Amino acid sequence: MEQRFSLITLGVADLARARGFYEAMGWHSNTDPELGVVFFQCLGTVLALWGRDELAADSGVVDGGGWGGCTPAQNVRSPQEVDAVIEQARAAGATIARAGAPTFWGGYSGVFIDPDGHPWEIAHNPHWQLADDGSVLLP
Amino acid sequence: MEQRFSLITLGVADLARARGFYEAMGWHSNTDPELGVVFFQCLGTVLALWGRDELAADSGVVDGGGWGGCTPAQNVRSPQEVDAVIEQARAAGATIARAGAPTFWGGYSGVFIDPDGHPWEIAHNPHWQLADDGSVLLP
Repeated sequence: MEQRFSLITLGVADLARARGFYEAMGWHSNTDPELGVVFFQCLGTVLALWGRDELAADSGVVDGGGWGGCTPAQNVRSPQEVDAVIEQARAAGATIARAGAPTFWGGYSGVFIDPDGHPWEIAHNPHWQLADDGSVLLP
Repeated sequence: MEQRFSLITLGVADLARARGFYEAMGWHSNTDPELGVVFFQCLGTVLALWGRDELAADSGVVDGGGWGGCTPAQNVRSPQEVDAVIEQARAAGATIARAGAPTFWGGYSGVFIDPDGHPWEIAHNPHWQLADDGSVLLP
């Protein structure tokens, strides 16, 4: 198995609402709203939104009903950008689980929770390289 | 918020076992085992393994205890490669939720479930471009 992933799919209760949230965060998808799924190109990967019931059935799992041990994160270029993204998420309807603050690993991060309960950590990590195109590179 | 993600963290019960599973899948991490977390470079993103309790606390969420609406996927280059990765996962100790088979969207995929209950869809999608380096590009 090659060391990479192509797609992360988040299960949602209301596809139009979920798409609207990510669009309010500044994201854009070309997916036809009639298709019943939404794909966002994210550099060389894709983030998808799909009905949670359909995703559970397709994944061959029983839905635990809450969070299930999977958290996406975005690294940004400064602590100020962490705060700005957290405020943007608040305005778009997210719940703020943690406001931006210094972390135990020497960075700065905050967490918002999208309308379907998916947390996103927004982090400034001075130890990792963040390229102009948004790629991250481990030390 | 830029349209990208940097990191996906999967919560695990036993970090050494989880790392061993992904290493048995052919992945390699430079993370010091003493660090209490594992980072795998995946093109311009990172897949991390971390204790599920710590991840839940850090993410500001209550752990539903099962799957929570998040499924990663890897697109591969042929139906035969889907079958090969599924068999590799079976040998590494995964549960097979779906053997490789044609999908309703005109591709071919299977699903394995890692030792911590995280499903992975392994898919051949003839409609999306898969670059030599493993990047995917939406139509």
